[in-house]
Amino acid sequence: MKPWFFFAGAILISVIAFFFAGWLYAWVNKQPSSNKKIATIGKYIRQGANTFLKKEYQVLAKFAGVAAVLIFVFLPEPIWKSKVLDNVTIALAYIFGTVFSAIAGKIGITIATIANIKTAEAAQKGIKPSFLSGFRGGAVMGMGVVGSSVLGVALLLWITNNTTALLGFSFGASSLALFAKAGGGIFTKTADVSADLVGKVELGIPEDDPRNPAVIADNVGDNVGDVAGMGADLFDSHVASLAAAMVIAANLDGTTTKFHTLLVLCFAVVGLLSSIIGVAFAKMGKTNNPTKALNTSTYLTTGIYVALTALVTWGMNAWQKSEGLLGKDYGAWLLWGAAILGLLVGVIIGITTDYFTNDVRKPVQLVAKASETGPAFTILSGVSYGFLSVLPAMIGIAISALVSYQLCKPLGGDYPLFGVSIAAVGMLSIVGMIISNDAYGPIVDNARGLAEMGDLGEEVVEITDTLDSAGNTVKAVTKGFSIGAAGLTVIALLFAFINEANEIAVTRGLAQINFLDIMDPLVFFGLVIGAAIPAVFSAMLMLGVDRNAQRMVGEIHRQFKEIPGLMEGKEGVVPEYDKCIEIATHGAIKELIPAGLFAILLTIVVGFIGGIKAVGGYLAGNIVSGLLLSLFMSNSGGLWDNSKKFIEAGNHGGKGSNAHKAAVVGDTVGDPFKDTAGPSINTQITVVSLVASLLAALFLTISLF
Amino acid sequence: MKPWFFFAGAILISVIAFFFAGWLYAWVNKQPSSNKKIATIGKYIRQGANTFLKKEYQVLAKFAGVAAVLIFVFLPEPIWKSKVLDNVTIALAYIFGTVFSAIAGKIGITIATIANIKTAEAAQKGIKPSFLSGFRGGAVMGMGVVGSSVLGVALLLWITNNTTALLGFSFGASSLALFAKAGGGIFTKTADVSADLVGKVELGIPEDDPRNPAVIADNVGDNVGDVAGMGADLFDSHVASLAAAMVIAANLDGTTTKFHTLLVLCFAVVGLLSSIIGVAFAKMGKTNNPTKALNTSTYLTTGIYVALTALVTWGMNAWQKSEGLLGKDYGAWLLWGAAILGLLVGVIIGITTDYFTNDVRKPVQLVAKASETGPAFTILSGVSYGFLSVLPAMIGIAISALVSYQLCKPLGGDYPLFGVSIAAVGMLSIVGMIISNDAYGPIVDNARGLAEMGDLGEEVVEITDTLDSAGNTVKAVTKGFSIGAAGLTVIALLFAFINEANEIAVTRGLAQINFLDIMDPLVFFGLVIGAAIPAVFSAMLMLGVDRNAQRMVGEIHRQFKEIPGLMEGKEGVVPEYDKCIEIATHGAIKELIPAGLFAILLTIVVGFIGGIKAVGGYLAGNIVSGLLLSLFMSNSGGLWDNSKKFIEAGNHGGKGSNAHKAAVVGDTVGDPFKDTAGPSINTQITVVSLVASLLAALFLTISLF
Repeated sequence: MKPWFFFAGAILISVIAFFFAGWLYAWVNKQPSSNKKIATIGKYIRQGANTFLKKEYQVLAKFAGVAAVLIFVFLPEPIWKSKVLDNVTIALAYIFGTVFSAIAGKIGITIATIANIKTAEAAQKGIKPSFLSGFRGGAVMGMGVVGSSVLGVALLLWITNNTTALLGFSFGASSLALFAKAGGGIFTKTADVSADLVGKVELGIPEDDPRNPAVIADNVGDNVGDVAGMGADLFDSHVASLAAAMVIAANLDGTTTKFHTLLVLCFAVVGLLSSIIGVAFAKMGKTNNPTKALNTSTYLTTGIYVALTALVTWGMNAWQKSEGLLGKDYGAWLLWGAAILGLLVGVIIGITTDYFTNDVRKPVQLVAKASETGPAFTILSGVSYGFLSVLPAMIGIAISALVSYQLCKPLGGDYPLFGVSIAAVGMLSIVGMIISNDAYGPIVDNARGLAEMGDLGEEVVEITDTLDSAGNTVKAVTKGFSIGAAGLTVIALLFAFINEANEIAVTRGLAQINFLDIMDPLVFFGLVIGAAIPAVFSAMLMLGVDRNAQRMVGEIHRQFKEIPGLMEGKEGVVPEYDKCIEIATHGAIKELIPAGLFAILLTIVVGFIGGIKAVGGYLAGNIVSGLLLSLFMSNSGGLWDNSKKFIEAGNHGGKGSNAHKAAVVGDTVGDPFKDTAGPSINTQITVVSLVASLLAALFLTISLF
Repeated sequence: MKPWFFFAGAILISVIAFFFAGWLYAWVNKQPSSNKKIATIGKYIRQGANTFLKKEYQVLAKFAGVAAVLIFVFLPEPIWKSKVLDNVTIALAYIFGTVFSAIAGKIGITIATIANIKTAEAAQKGIKPSFLSGFRGGAVMGMGVVGSSVLGVALLLWITNNTTALLGFSFGASSLALFAKAGGGIFTKTADVSADLVGKVELGIPEDDPRNPAVIADNVGDNVGDVAGMGADLFDSHVASLAAAMVIAANLDGTTTKFHTLLVLCFAVVGLLSSIIGVAFAKMGKTNNPTKALNTSTYLTTGIYVALTALVTWGMNAWQKSEGLLGKDYGAWLLWGAAILGLLVGVIIGITTDYFTNDVRKPVQLVAKASETGPAFTILSGVSYGFLSVLPAMIGIAISALVSYQLCKPLGGDYPLFGVSIAAVGMLSIVGMIISNDAYGPIVDNARGLAEMGDLGEEVVEITDTLDSAGNTVKAVTKGFSIGAAGLTVIALLFAFINEANEIAVTRGLAQINFLDIMDPLVFFGLVIGAAIPAVFSAMLMLGVDRNAQRMVGEIHRQFKEIPGLMEGKEGVVPEYDKCIEIATHGAIKELIPAGLFAILLTIVVGFIGGIKAVGGYLAGNIVSGLLLSLFMSNSGGLWDNSKKFIEAGNHGGKGSNAHKAAVVGDTVGDPFKDTAGPSINTQITVVSLVASLLAALFLTISLF
């Protein structure tokens, strides 16, 4: 078979995904909406979200411009030493990466801020149409993100035939993810904290009161952080897993044909196709249970993926057998095994995450009980269970890396490493479905708020409540899944980094890095410093939220003081919502940049001190401590959130009790843990890994030791 | 020179240290005390501490008995395969390790519970005699601990000439440290939390009110955790650093003479000698500034150590030159450089720790300010600064490992690794002085409480306050120092582990482990799982404190209910203090055992799955994440403690303000962080490293992959 057949097929499927997304978009958009109050608030939210995106993309454009020039001058090698075309390719690939991700984010925000209104109003007709509006809104994002990823990778590879360009594309995606995820995380928590502090605590007005100048910023934050940020994050992981696998595949292909690269592409395309089918058939059964509906479509997608990849593997195996590529009759089946293993471990990690954050399980209930004794015990028990929660996920990641490696060992050479990267591809394969489920959450959450603000009546609010609670439950699973997938991806990136460095070493006649020996002091040096980075990075983001919230609190105070009639709620007096959105936006970007630069610059410093070996150790340290901290922060944050909700449901004295007050403290601590720092660590690791891979050539030639 | 000369010298100096400790003990003991109230309370505390020690040692005796039998049967190799004498030696060495450490702990507790009374009463005569009582009390512990370590190591090595026996000795020391530090940590926080919860929160009686049945347990806790636990911890680190260096030294000596082992011994002995001199000359100058007095004696000790080791190195260099051992004229000077580097980096780490926990610096003040907004912000800012605080220490450890390695590179072979282990020995060399400063803290803290309870008047309380605050300041430095030293020690232990495994491999004709390649999936598997251990271990300890505190709160409630006249403070009615002490003791041991077994058993499981390589990765992961978490927990705990004190000193509204309430929440969270989990992680890592080294032979032969 000719490679063009595969590339054309991949592009075809991704175009189908776009058409499908377009159809879903149109479907959601044509759902009826009539309530004027909801329309007005919805418009504010949409405008606010666009303000953030516009500002973010402006700053990003500058950042990406500078980065693209640097890439053009220095990568893959300084321009005076290399072919100009190579440098142009990588710089362009980088720009494509940022643009693709930006477009996906923009689409996601647009549909989310329409779907929330439609979902709220559809709830008047019952739970089924309301569910479908929310889910299909989320699915637009899912299809858009994975479609873009597959399209970008296939096009780039077809045109350039250069896997370093894929790393550039991936770096573009992860630069944007850093802005979207970490910046969005700072934005959303700034708004949330400030709105609560002045509104609920100081003035005693309700949570979503439209007099509060920060209330729209708070709603915008949900979309910015949870929809656009999450989408950019998973786009980044998906692209990175493909890039890592293809860098290793290209090395294998060097001695055979294009078999390996195309296998990776096939697995990704089949994942997209399975997600399309899963989304298309998703609907609520007779039970009217939204959680079940979401889970059923996820399991359906998983099943289809397993079956379809088996079919593809059967064909690919026939090819490899006829050309004797893998030296084993069943060679492709081993790689298929690695992919399926990755997928299954992903599901298992999701389930264990659920255990630690679901309110029908012990941890959440025990933390709620501990809250009776005061906030210190909410924190202590939450931290403890958060620490415990890292174990199953880390064992899962360790086992999937080990087993996928061992599985492919019979194939010899670099195949075991390839097996690990294929496991990461497998784990991320159904990400189209995962994003659909994940984006469903903030949409129905917003819909719930709109139903309340639009006075749609208790029954309607109850329906949106049910939908929202399903969103929270499913979110824990998808979150665990995405951290697991990111973990395996960065392991694959580490392998890709060494592969890349060695390829360069070979071309230049330098010694290859055959191993990253922990007993080598350069490696160990990197390991220890790399382990400190995620902690420092998280701290910088959290302190950024704090500083930014102080600025916004000042602005809210100013408005209440200077706008006559605002506090009294005089008809027609509207606060300057946009000022708060501006502050949140501006501050988010301002606070994010030092944290991002810190991680990138320290990588470069370590590289120039200790060369490739130190950077290898640094990445490994970064990965293990990053996994540890992101699991800890995401899970403990979710746990505190649900403990608070568990108490609010009437346990341990319910709302207003001392236990509730303590649980609110836990929730406030958990918010930046789970929405700002925790999930940004994944992106930080990916960015650092890609910087390392791209600069490998420089570190090979210039280093102190 | 003959080796016996060195061994005899080492034994002589350690005996001098014991005599000096005896003299200090006698000096403190003969200080006058007359106040009956203080004497009674002091007696309760002494008895309580002895109750804990007795119970702890009983359980430990069983544990050590079982461990000794297992060691006898299986180590260094199963008894049916090896010479019985080897197994007997290691088992006996193990027992000696536990006994030496137990004796040092017992001595420390005894003197601490005398010195607190003397210090309180001496304060009536002025700050100088009071300071001297406190400091000399602490110094008894310092001399006893380091004297025991040097004596034990010298004797064992002289008699058995077997470095594996040293690992057994070290394992004995660290088993006891696990009980003393982690068990003591659970004890002290159980008592502290329960006493506060019922006393201050529920009943509104003052902190040290003698009606509170848990008040004595609380005071006992200070001695048990901070004196005995800290002493056992540093005994453990000191022995481990010597054992690690000597295992590597013995391999080097195998091809030359006993030069390397004796050099390590010399450096340790000189450290002891310098500490003796430093303690002997410690006194308060004209300024009456206790912090300055403590720091001056530390710097004096450091100076003496540098000078004396230079002298010793000069002599040793002449020896090695005459026999051409190191192949360089200046060979011994390179090793000396590594030791001094270690010492200096230790001091620098101490100073940076001080920055993050001292209330004249920004972090503590900013956390105090954040407390004005509520407890969630106390926690968030404390966590953030805690995360930031890990960076300088981890960079310091990374640099000292890298530079000491590079320094000794010209010597070739295993010398660079030896250099790293010598840096750890250097960092721990002045530990006699460090312990003296550290034990001074709880003694004057107790003295302050006694002065208050014994109604010695405001002026006296003020003096003890000044002494106490100096103790807190110095403690931050010594704590940073000991975490840094433990970090470098466990790195040395990792090297010793590989050295040990290779030595066995050579004897059996197996392949040597030339490197721990991170790209090897077995190593990576271990790395990821090892990184999760400190988090899970800490969580188990903290949850243990929580469960244990609930039991004790129940007991306090019972006493107030069932003992007539207790609440009213009727003359002659005394609560059953011993019941609370029993609960704290019993619970501490009960809660500790699963955490300790978890870490040990998981090491064995990983070893049997992945063999030496997986265990190597596991240790490395354990070390980096352990360093990260112990630095984070110890520093953030200290920071919260001092933020509370900063507010209590009248800032941000002072005592009783909202900021103060929030800061109390921070302090309550920080207590188990800094006194239970944080410092126990060091011991956990040491225990696991030693288990790995001792079982190396088994992992070499039996493993799944």
